[in-house]
Amino acid sequence: MKSDLDSLMQSHAFDALLVFGPGDHNPAMMYLTGGGHFTGELLKPRGQPPVLFCRAMERDEAAKTGLPTKLVDDYRPTELLKQFGGDSLKAATARFQQMLSDYGVTRGRVAVYGRVEIGGTFALLNALQAAMPDLTFVGEVGNTMLMEAQLTKDETEIARIRKMGQITTAVVAQVADFITAHKTHNEVLIKPDGTPLTIGEVKARINLWLAERGAENPEGTIFAIGRDAAIPHSSGDPAQVLKLGQTIVFDIYPCEQGGGYYYDFTRTWCLGYAPDAALAQYEQVRAVFDTLMGELRLDAPFKNYQERTCELFEAQGHTTIRQQPATQQGYVHSVGHGVGLNIHERPWSGVTAGEADILAAGSVFTIEPGLYYPEQGIGVRLEDTLWMRADGVAERLADYPYDLVLPMRSL
Amino acid sequence: MKSDLDSLMQSHAFDALLVFGPGDHNPAMMYLTGGGHFTGELLKPRGQPPVLFCRAMERDEAAKTGLPTKLVDDYRPTELLKQFGGDSLKAATARFQQMLSDYGVTRGRVAVYGRVEIGGTFALLNALQAAMPDLTFVGEVGNTMLMEAQLTKDETEIARIRKMGQITTAVVAQVADFITAHKTHNEVLIKPDGTPLTIGEVKARINLWLAERGAENPEGTIFAIGRDAAIPHSSGDPAQVLKLGQTIVFDIYPCEQGGGYYYDFTRTWCLGYAPDAALAQYEQVRAVFDTLMGELRLDAPFKNYQERTCELFEAQGHTTIRQQPATQQGYVHSVGHGVGLNIHERPWSGVTAGEADILAAGSVFTIEPGLYYPEQGIGVRLEDTLWMRADGVAERLADYPYDLVLPMRSL
Repeated sequence: MKSDLDSLMQSHAFDALLVFGPGDHNPAMMYLTGGGHFTGELLKPRGQPPVLFCRAMERDEAAKTGLPTKLVDDYRPTELLKQFGGDSLKAATARFQQMLSDYGVTRGRVAVYGRVEIGGTFALLNALQAAMPDLTFVGEVGNTMLMEAQLTKDETEIARIRKMGQITTAVVAQVADFITAHKTHNEVLIKPDGTPLTIGEVKARINLWLAERGAENPEGTIFAIGRDAAIPHSSGDPAQVLKLGQTIVFDIYPCEQGGGYYYDFTRTWCLGYAPDAALAQYEQVRAVFDTLMGELRLDAPFKNYQERTCELFEAQGHTTIRQQPATQQGYVHSVGHGVGLNIHERPWSGVTAGEADILAAGSVFTIEPGLYYPEQGIGVRLEDTLWMRADGVAERLADYPYDLVLPMRSL
Repeated sequence: MKSDLDSLMQSHAFDALLVFGPGDHNPAMMYLTGGGHFTGELLKPRGQPPVLFCRAMERDEAAKTGLPTKLVDDYRPTELLKQFGGDSLKAATARFQQMLSDYGVTRGRVAVYGRVEIGGTFALLNALQAAMPDLTFVGEVGNTMLMEAQLTKDETEIARIRKMGQITTAVVAQVADFITAHKTHNEVLIKPDGTPLTIGEVKARINLWLAERGAENPEGTIFAIGRDAAIPHSSGDPAQVLKLGQTIVFDIYPCEQGGGYYYDFTRTWCLGYAPDAALAQYEQVRAVFDTLMGELRLDAPFKNYQERTCELFEAQGHTTIRQQPATQQGYVHSVGHGVGLNIHERPWSGVTAGEADILAAGSVFTIEPGLYYPEQGIGVRLEDTLWMRADGVAERLADYPYDLVLPMRSL
């Protein structure tokens, strides 16, 4: 949790955090500032509040974060550039050296964060490392200290994710309503103008309805039909038409406008009717989903549920990723992941899961078993986002029906 | 231009390009792949087509780029992780070493690009550098080789930016229509329910109408009134109400859904009427704007127009950034910038402008003079996006009236 940051820095032996990049669409900066329309750097020495370095032009936006701010312009970047004969790397290095020194960061380990263009920051960090040999700039690989802090959420964060859940399910309901209002011809959905309804048009509506509610979907939306539904990360061909009796995997993962907290949600639909093979697979996924939901326990290792999912699908006769890591049919992915300022974050349930990846109090995670048979043109996945409460209840953060078949109102 | 890439690599002595990160909201990856819903790496050895490394789950999305793809899974990342005792940095380093070797990239200079979380990639590049001493991984600072390629656009790119210009101006017209339909009470705009109209509500409409047209605004929108309008990058307080007779700076810079090509556009409005001081400043900005538009010449250094803008504003009696680099009133920024897959790209007109920052045939750039007087609560800026054609005509890519006063229909 955010309040654990200083103690986490202590246990990871970090003397400071240095965060690069914009306030929006940048999870590390968003986490430490609350977000905003500015681009700068944030420096947090251990045991001290963070300071936000910003440009004069963005000072009002930066001030809205409530953090102490410091103007980059005070370091006279234009004069530094002249002083170093136009060498922008040398000028930037000198400025950062001064900034770090001003806040007492001159020796020890500095963790670096932020979503940026790699080239310039890679060069800057290497130059800074050479200029300040008593400091060690550390890029963490895999699970970072910030991700450890983010593994559990405070009440404010839960409220924001819950709100995104309400928005997400409201949009899903609108999509169901929109689709089922169409007429059909030869099993193809037809618009009032007589032409077929395409996935691209459905996705345009999704974007519109999300925007209408103050959300966005920077990672896109999966709305995939038939064979595409059986490829877990195919997002769906915009030109493809909607047909009756085919499985649709609708996986929607929007976030707050500006790139804040996410929600993650999947339903599988068949329009009008479901063929026997699709219905059978849906019922199997649903049974696994319901079993898992009943077995979630406070502080249990998340990977246990991946094992359990494989066990349940194997008992139904399916191939799983546990038996064949490279399989592309059957159960082919992990059962869930944490959700927060990143659509995928800790706790992990798959091969990367470690000891700390437990369903801790305050963790927010998905449960999303699925079956995929590309050759049959069938894919099924069900997914909700849950919050493990301190009382041991895994609370679904938004409710929505699980029905496979969406009856067409014209039929 | 994109077709110059191999010759640019030659002149910059790069033997390969290595691009990290997602296909969306990542200009370098978008430029080289066209974008898409995948996360991977792209390797382009000089004189060879790029290869896109992707995960099995995302193979269909990656294939849509039309580029040769290679499955990361073929490098057995899970087994590598076991082989290195769970050390994900060592495993990733070994995988990249193999990937580079497979495509003949074993000596020379490799330019690195992509918008990513800095930590992991910083660590990976340093480990890879140690493991492959015959290669030099280069992060460019400031103007990169890719930015040089992007300085001029081909016809396909111009068509996409022009389309975004049409979308942008259509939304601006909707905003004007929406605002001016409101009634007023004591100079405050009032909604049908009797409560005041706020900036937050206007911005929600902007997001909605952009989404409706297949665009998004990942960088936000500036809709700032009064004193906020006089702070060039204040985006506007969502809780502030709209009032008659105050300057509104409306700077809108959306891009294609998924993070593609941008458009950049600003108008200054006064609702109902304009106070004399605002009108006077508007007329001065408009005069400078019109003078600049008439003086744009093929292959002219862009910074000449910054000089010219300062000269014109100084002649009107205003303080400029040329006289006082730290000034926060008068003319305080640069006159324009290139627009493409980045909202700010080359050519530059400000202090960072170099010899190559000219209005070359195929360049797309903004012209955006403005005046700012925070103490008077007045800010004025006008901005269009232009394309310098090979015939020397600087073509405005979308038309929209410049009027300061928007008459309220109820008055």
